[in-house]
Amino acid sequence: MDNFTFYSPTKFVFGKGMESEAGKLVKEFGGSKVLIHYGGGSVVRSGLLDRVKASLDEASIAYVELGGVKPNPRSGLVYEGIDLCRKEEVDFILAVGGGSAIDSAKAIAAGTIYDGDFWDYYQGKPILKALPVGTVLTIAAAGSEGSGDSVITKEEGMFKRGASGEGIRPKFSILNPELTTTLPPYQTACGITDIMAHLYERYLTNSTDVEVTDRLIEALLLTMKKEGPRAIKDPADYEARANIMWAGTMAHTNSCGVGRSQDWSSHCIEHELSALYDCAHGAGLAVTMPQVFKYVMNHNVMRFAQAAVRVWGCEMNFENPEQTALEGIDAFASFLKSIGMPSTIAEFGGKEEDVPVLTKSLCYGDGGNGTLSGFVTLTEEDCANIYKMML
Amino acid sequence: MDNFTFYSPTKFVFGKGMESEAGKLVKEFGGSKVLIHYGGGSVVRSGLLDRVKASLDEASIAYVELGGVKPNPRSGLVYEGIDLCRKEEVDFILAVGGGSAIDSAKAIAAGTIYDGDFWDYYQGKPILKALPVGTVLTIAAAGSEGSGDSVITKEEGMFKRGASGEGIRPKFSILNPELTTTLPPYQTACGITDIMAHLYERYLTNSTDVEVTDRLIEALLLTMKKEGPRAIKDPADYEARANIMWAGTMAHTNSCGVGRSQDWSSHCIEHELSALYDCAHGAGLAVTMPQVFKYVMNHNVMRFAQAAVRVWGCEMNFENPEQTALEGIDAFASFLKSIGMPSTIAEFGGKEEDVPVLTKSLCYGDGGNGTLSGFVTLTEEDCANIYKMML
Repeated sequence: MDNFTFYSPTKFVFGKGMESEAGKLVKEFGGSKVLIHYGGGSVVRSGLLDRVKASLDEASIAYVELGGVKPNPRSGLVYEGIDLCRKEEVDFILAVGGGSAIDSAKAIAAGTIYDGDFWDYYQGKPILKALPVGTVLTIAAAGSEGSGDSVITKEEGMFKRGASGEGIRPKFSILNPELTTTLPPYQTACGITDIMAHLYERYLTNSTDVEVTDRLIEALLLTMKKEGPRAIKDPADYEARANIMWAGTMAHTNSCGVGRSQDWSSHCIEHELSALYDCAHGAGLAVTMPQVFKYVMNHNVMRFAQAAVRVWGCEMNFENPEQTALEGIDAFASFLKSIGMPSTIAEFGGKEEDVPVLTKSLCYGDGGNGTLSGFVTLTEEDCANIYKMML
Repeated sequence: MDNFTFYSPTKFVFGKGMESEAGKLVKEFGGSKVLIHYGGGSVVRSGLLDRVKASLDEASIAYVELGGVKPNPRSGLVYEGIDLCRKEEVDFILAVGGGSAIDSAKAIAAGTIYDGDFWDYYQGKPILKALPVGTVLTIAAAGSEGSGDSVITKEEGMFKRGASGEGIRPKFSILNPELTTTLPPYQTACGITDIMAHLYERYLTNSTDVEVTDRLIEALLLTMKKEGPRAIKDPADYEARANIMWAGTMAHTNSCGVGRSQDWSSHCIEHELSALYDCAHGAGLAVTMPQVFKYVMNHNVMRFAQAAVRVWGCEMNFENPEQTALEGIDAFASFLKSIGMPSTIAEFGGKEEDVPVLTKSLCYGDGGNGTLSGFVTLTEEDCANIYKMML
């Protein structure tokens, strides 16, 4: 196990009706004027935004609003948010929505008090300082409610890049599973896939002797395997939603990923899909992961066999562990299909001629050096091969 | 799943040599004059205390010392520590040791800035304010390095009682598994048992639909089942120690125990054993748990069958789930024996005439109302029966 620091000082307030605590929590963490940042109309239509505002009013917290966050959130709205926060002297950002609203809120929080262009952070500068951020989560997926990470797409060039730092870790996150019961099955499935991707990215490690984190990751994958289909079958099932929501948060605070190398190749490879096709991140991951796993499987067959046996309930084939490893990947792919996820980029309208475009952007776009490092170092040729497998 | 708040803002700094960060961390969390609080000679003899002091010196942090914490830490030393901190105007408490040193440090931290008798907190008053506490952990066991809990024994009456509150949750905890490689097998086994007890106390729930936390608890139990015997066999095995240490911390931050009712009967029943016989808490738990589990098993046979199958690798007996449940409890009892733990109070010198003494203190001592609530509500007669089973 490698040395590590684990610091997750986010206050998670979980359960039915908890959005009514928003005002009290903003006050607890020192906010007096809030930017409420959200996406489309659903938080308005559902009455959630009104409930959040009522809670802020009750705590005598002033606020301004900025809606319009899109999936794969864009830099344009971030710049707009930064201007608004400076003009209005906002001192707290409250995201109401899923990973996109939260990631956009984090970018605004960092950019508002930064002298330079906020995009510097998305080119590798760690975010040490930002306005405090709180969240009211409406989609179990990205894990951004408990992480110090944010992903933004820059319109010029459509580069989708991530930034990290303790400065943007939320002070509090309100997790009310009720808010996710109105999500349609497709978006629910995208969230399930994203959560499982966060787990697999950590599972694919070159570190040895990491039983405790292996077991924690497997625990959360097993939870998703049981609870995911339950939420797809009955979107209003509170208990399934609650299990998924806590699993999604635990999957990405990194308590199950410490002390070990991680992969994140599938996320990088997918980011090009959602940038080019504007597909949902989870849907892109569903297409990406099984092909990446098959491509890199022989780097450590036993790791994939372990997942096959412990998570997917495969019988270990002691004469032929490759067979077991492959069975586990196939079981995962079948699971993703069963919850309604795509398995090819053709389903996004992708064609063979896109392969070099995707590969070039992945390997050389916005500062890339031609290879992708992780569980296995992938060359440009490897990346092209993987994209071809997704056709 | 029940509503809950989860807030674990402790910075965990994990790995080889990390005690050298102590000074920097005290400074980061605002300390300028420290009480170093520890137990016996081993932290002195091993050179750990000198390394911690060197780290404080390097960060220009002043300090005073108070050693002498005993297992089942006593109120007498707490009062002494409070006087010392007030006299020396200490503003940060640094515990160097295991759960006893940490629990004693927490009591001193709370008591120093409290007008009344610190024991008030151990009679149910929540600890909202205390001096900041940091820890350098030397024994993986109590989980106190990541919890807002403390257990102290009051000399008058030998009452062993717990206090809780966000005020005493450590600001940072340094977890260096190397420091635990010198622990003798018996103490190691006591720690393993305590960690597994923290998991079982959470596992025995009356809440339904708690798959995510069930799976996380099972993950940590599986880790202990694999890594525990490895550390007993080769105490110097760093990797086994590292897995146990992180599992021990994760077992008690409560991330795996949120949203569900918990038991804690075994801890209460055990506290009387360590108070009367001054046995190690872990050893007392090893005697207690299997008998408690057998006594309450029929309250929810399937819960015990689930642990038997998922943790202990038992075959599910679909015709007779009781058989599987019992097999799992027996497997756990055998595991505890295999790592050198006792299974009867006779091994502590206990006798049949102690049963009414233990029962009376448990059920009526220091404010008890005659019953013990948890997974199953236990009457005085139940408690006496359980103690008899331990003879």
